[in-house]
Amino acid sequence: MAKIRVTVWNEYIDDLTKASVVEIYPQGIHGCIAEFLEEAGFEATKATLEMPEHGLTEEVLNRTDVLIWWGHKAHHLVEDEIVERVHQRILEGMGFIALHSSYASKIFRALSGTNVEDPKWRHAEEKSILWVVDPAHPIVDGLDEKIILDQEEMYGERFNIPLPEAIVFISWFEGGEVLRSGCCYTRGKGKVFYFQPGHEEYPVYYNKEIQKVICNAVKWAKPIHSPVITNGMAENPIMPIHSK
Amino acid sequence: MAKIRVTVWNEYIDDLTKASVVEIYPQGIHGCIAEFLEEAGFEATKATLEMPEHGLTEEVLNRTDVLIWWGHKAHHLVEDEIVERVHQRILEGMGFIALHSSYASKIFRALSGTNVEDPKWRHAEEKSILWVVDPAHPIVDGLDEKIILDQEEMYGERFNIPLPEAIVFISWFEGGEVLRSGCCYTRGKGKVFYFQPGHEEYPVYYNKEIQKVICNAVKWAKPIHSPVITNGMAENPIMPIHSK
Amino acid sequence: MAKIRVTVWNEYIDDLTKASVVEIYPQGIHGCIAEFLEEAGFEATKATLEMPEHGLTEEVLNRTDVLIWWGHKAHHLVEDEIVERVHQRILEGMGFIALHSSYASKIFRALSGTNVEDPKWRHAEEKSILWVVDPAHPIVDGLDEKIILDQEEMYGERFNIPLPEAIVFISWFEGGEVLRSGCCYTRGKGKVFYFQPGHEEYPVYYNKEIQKVICNAVKWAKPIHSPVITNGMAENPIMPIHSK
Amino acid sequence: MAKIRVTVWNEYIDDLTKASVVEIYPQGIHGCIAEFLEEAGFEATKATLEMPEHGLTEEVLNRTDVLIWWGHKAHHLVEDEIVERVHQRILEGMGFIALHSSYASKIFRALSGTNVEDPKWRHAEEKSILWVVDPAHPIVDGLDEKIILDQEEMYGERFNIPLPEAIVFISWFEGGEVLRSGCCYTRGKGKVFYFQPGHEEYPVYYNKEIQKVICNAVKWAKPIHSPVITNGMAENPIMPIHSK
Repeated sequence: MAKIRVTVWNEYIDDLTKASVVEIYPQGIHGCIAEFLEEAGFEATKATLEMPEHGLTEEVLNRTDVLIWWGHKAHHLVEDEIVERVHQRILEGMGFIALHSSYASKIFRALSGTNVEDPKWRHAEEKSILWVVDPAHPIVDGLDEKIILDQEEMYGERFNIPLPEAIVFISWFEGGEVLRSGCCYTRGKGKVFYFQPGHEEYPVYYNKEIQKVICNAVKWAKPIHSPVITNGMAENPIMPIHSK
Repeated sequence: MAKIRVTVWNEYIDDLTKASVVEIYPQGIHGCIAEFLEEAGFEATKATLEMPEHGLTEEVLNRTDVLIWWGHKAHHLVEDEIVERVHQRILEGMGFIALHSSYASKIFRALSGTNVEDPKWRHAEEKSILWVVDPAHPIVDGLDEKIILDQEEMYGERFNIPLPEAIVFISWFEGGEVLRSGCCYTRGKGKVFYFQPGHEEYPVYYNKEIQKVICNAVKWAKPIHSPVITNGMAENPIMPIHSK
Repeated sequence: MAKIRVTVWNEYIDDLTKASVVEIYPQGIHGCIAEFLEEAGFEATKATLEMPEHGLTEEVLNRTDVLIWWGHKAHHLVEDEIVERVHQRILEGMGFIALHSSYASKIFRALSGTNVEDPKWRHAEEKSILWVVDPAHPIVDGLDEKIILDQEEMYGERFNIPLPEAIVFISWFEGGEVLRSGCCYTRGKGKVFYFQPGHEEYPVYYNKEIQKVICNAVKWAKPIHSPVITNGMAENPIMPIHSK
Repeated sequence: MAKIRVTVWNEYIDDLTKASVVEIYPQGIHGCIAEFLEEAGFEATKATLEMPEHGLTEEVLNRTDVLIWWGHKAHHLVEDEIVERVHQRILEGMGFIALHSSYASKIFRALSGTNVEDPKWRHAEEKSILWVVDPAHPIVDGLDEKIILDQEEMYGERFNIPLPEAIVFISWFEGGEVLRSGCCYTRGKGKVFYFQPGHEEYPVYYNKEIQKVICNAVKWAKPIHSPVITNGMAENPIMPIHSK
């Protein structure tokens, strides 16, 4: 069976320039993610903001089964044309996984239909516990019923996302907040997963359970052989029309 | 109790300039809709494409509880700034009802998160039957289990809308197609309803059952006193953080 | 407009016989709930386990718009025949609100399609915070974005309920757990709401915000004039069949 | 990779005793289904009403990944104890596929939470068209956008099922009705699919497209390695409780 082809996109700013973050992710967040994906048997390609066309050329997208996205401070620097291109590919079947602060990316906002304004947030090195609420979902395959993160940025409700088709995780934060932290959507022929963990100042993507979630999400989001849909004028009815 | 304030927006082109349509809707589609809404006890305001700011000034929107939209051939002429303004008001709680070909309006597309490309369509004066599939929903209050339209444009699946939170109607078309023809969504604090009937060449909005659906949808979509949501930095946790 | 008729059912055991609970609810939990409902303009009837037919005769149910249920230790003493009768009335349109430990009642289990086994639970006088996650929902009309309960029994995920059609609240518990604590369903023509707060040893139903939720839920759950549905053999097609 | 183990249950009455049906399914409906499953690479076991424990012993269920059910006139003859056993296994993760008139089986009714009374129905050798409405769903992998059945029993809305988590197909019937004909649910750790086609008097299960749907549904419904859930008293909180 051919390997699932994953493109890992990262704005790659703090993990390139800010010492405290570089220390955690010396190869960038995308480097860390691509590495564990490769180890898990996926084919991983890296792409960043600074590359031509942000590394998301037609050619790259055409051989991407699932696109993973990590952005934070540079959402506004992503070209609208590339956003539109990614959007179109998702509607055609490419899977899409938005991590952490990528809720505010242009592409996730376009997919959501809301502005997905900032949820509550706080940097307090506080504990977060992700509870599985959908134990039948492929994304929780092989997990325990909860994942404990010793340090994670708090993101708290009310989170302005559209009603998820499936809520896989709900997070508890020490300071009193909760979040729907693992949420599934379908857009056209494409599957979309939002997953909250991954503040750049904590080593979250080295956590084996978090890695398992992302690997499972890739498998879940990979395209199927979708039916060819015909759109527009259907002059000849399938069945005879007698009303006239 | 104060009346619910409805603004009825129409591109107002064919029903102003094309004799066969003017004959059916001499006061425009918006005129017909505003009239039955007023009779039903709502306060109705009319707005059209040609008005300054398309008739959708901040002032008008601020006193609109529910906005009804009918557009077909001039979607591209609606200014992006007005679309963004309407979108924002919906997220803040204004109800929104998209009728018929308004699935392709900029605002409905922005709300949906897909491109909502054209479904199958056909003008064949064929019969359409709308079946109620959610008999507990406020939108079907007082209806029979089906509405038969002797003539309606066919819109057929696969319709590229996001998964509805509630499907109120499914339509049967004589030529062999079906459509999820009454679909509910929530976006932010706003409620959104898509309703398929209303091809301009047939007198659909004079149908008493169709009018009842639209009146019920207005009541369902009117804003509540939504909680005030705080967003962004929440420096002070509600509960003490002991992890650090 | 006629008052909405609510029947408040309570097993009425601990609040009748256990001093510490009687002290909190001298008129029983149902007495407390009926009182604030009456004050809010509803017509409230009380019914308990010990009454003939548990107080839920055909006559009582026929004039009940919404049934509220509170049970804990005596679920098994509720007669199957009465459970079946209540189930049938819900399918016909009567609203149903299951409070707290009533998740384990025969009727809520029958409605759910799962066994709704016990979630995690703990009596530790711990804090609970209910976060509004659906600010457009009629059940949160007039609320703040959260309700803080100084003491509530912890109920924690994974809670074996079917996927809610709307999740109105998610609860945070001090000890590290979360719960989907306000969940909406439709069953036939009836609307169903599960609401977690209400451990008998804490004065939860005197909380004005909790009362507001229950009042809003009653309004949301009251029956509409549902379409009459025809079932079974439909020998004569609506449209001619030419295939044969 | 180990084969997925499917048990195909059939009441096996008309296809054993009624000449016109025996002619179509000489090995029974379960025989036909088991055969195409085996050809597709699954391990198929057959079970019928007349076997001891209806062929659904603890041992059989323990080595069943997905159970397929076909019943029509003998629903009442299925022992409650066996229904309860099957229900429990589904909650623990076994997939379940209810075909055609099995909507009225005790087990599907128990899973649904409604009584799932008869939809409209008619035997008129009429055409049915199944439209794919969820082209991203694994169950439509490799299909066209519609399946045309030259003859199928009509089942028409309003169908008293709970809101599906995904609607995969909507059927058109020549006489004017529609049906949500491919519906997905989760119950506990188990996945459930209802699929309408399969009237015993028409050779529906020989249709290659229908076979593909059932094979896809088996793959979709097979259990994952679900998290172990702890239930009941959780005396020791994960996080310290300071409120007291």
